[in-house]
Amino acid sequence: MHRTKVRIVEDALDANNTIAAANRADFDRAGVTVVNFMSAPGAGKTTLLERAVAELPGVRVGVLEGDVQGSMDADRLASLHIPVVQLNTDAGFGGECHLDANMVRSAIPALPLDEIDLLIVENVGNLVCPAEFRIGEDARVMVSAVTEGEDKPLKYPLMYRACELVLVNKIDLLPHLDIDLDRLLYNIDKVHPDVERIVVSARTGEGVDAWRDWLTRVAAPAGAMAAG
Amino acid sequence: MHRTKVRIVEDALDANNTIAAANRADFDRAGVTVVNFMSAPGAGKTTLLERAVAELPGVRVGVLEGDVQGSMDADRLASLHIPVVQLNTDAGFGGECHLDANMVRSAIPALPLDEIDLLIVENVGNLVCPAEFRIGEDARVMVSAVTEGEDKPLKYPLMYRACELVLVNKIDLLPHLDIDLDRLLYNIDKVHPDVERIVVSARTGEGVDAWRDWLTRVAAPAGAMAAG
Repeated sequence: MHRTKVRIVEDALDANNTIAAANRADFDRAGVTVVNFMSAPGAGKTTLLERAVAELPGVRVGVLEGDVQGSMDADRLASLHIPVVQLNTDAGFGGECHLDANMVRSAIPALPLDEIDLLIVENVGNLVCPAEFRIGEDARVMVSAVTEGEDKPLKYPLMYRACELVLVNKIDLLPHLDIDLDRLLYNIDKVHPDVERIVVSARTGEGVDAWRDWLTRVAAPAGAMAAG
Repeated sequence: MHRTKVRIVEDALDANNTIAAANRADFDRAGVTVVNFMSAPGAGKTTLLERAVAELPGVRVGVLEGDVQGSMDADRLASLHIPVVQLNTDAGFGGECHLDANMVRSAIPALPLDEIDLLIVENVGNLVCPAEFRIGEDARVMVSAVTEGEDKPLKYPLMYRACELVLVNKIDLLPHLDIDLDRLLYNIDKVHPDVERIVVSARTGEGVDAWRDWLTRVAAPAGAMAAG
């Protein structure tokens, strides 16, 4: 009797990762670098985007704005004359507390991928679930506001570990807080040793140049590919 | 042929509500009032508890502390010499971003219900999912820190609508923020008309007396029952 060799699929992906890989392929084809931008509610993501994307020399930026409902942040960013697409988890996705690969996939037809080099996906404000879902991004960035306390890396370690960059925001408020910046930085390093960090104030602009430089740097390879 | 009348179960509860009702019955039997205490990460829940529970005349308080992992807040509260039980969603509950009725149920045997009048359940820091899961509580309270911005009620309306009380915290920082307190209060009222609000600063103690009074008031009926 002839015996068929059974092939074992070893690298079976779950549904989210399968769709994230499809998103990834679409972004690669268009030469677009994608950043998944995450934080707790009110940490300053939108203001940090307003500060950065208005002036990114040579980089054409687009934003995919994730919210449970509403389009307030998208409206703010659209006033900067960049392409912005709103994705609401309330509309067909059960009011989810995070974006996943399938939600992002549903937005791809609305994104002008051929006209941008860098897509920033502003996730729903939440320190837990967004870290668990890849969306096809190149890099993950989180904002950790000093007002939230120095213990947050220890309480939400998955989020801090998932990121390539941590923006430590609202440092203009440090003189008015009982918070030790060194302790916060120590705790970030404890859960994610040597992760890149930029200390910023979206309000005063301190550190924003370094944040712009970081975005320009990650956008460069895809931009070069698109031009080639 | 004999026809059996089919009874329609009209008020079928989902699993979470069924378990919440069982928790509710246990709390009622013990004469314990239960407050579900929610907010975004770092809004000041634990500090507001430290401020309030140390001095609640005639009310015996216990705390059920919900976190993804760790027991830092529980350790802080235990130093006030009140019973504190830690519930980690990482331990057997998949690292969930919220507490649900079943998680709370699993903690009930560890709670000294006969020795307390008021149980405060500090939920996981998150403005989305905690609002969707009843745990068998009498009242829901949320903390909205002014540092998070005046737009949060419009972006996370379900949470604001689910609560009987909104504590507007960190008002000591208002002079250093580009935030209009009246606009935040207006937005809270817009999504939840006439909801009770207390403006507080956990740091300076402003408004903390009103927060203590509120807790004493909600604890009173159950306390009276337990004594009767």
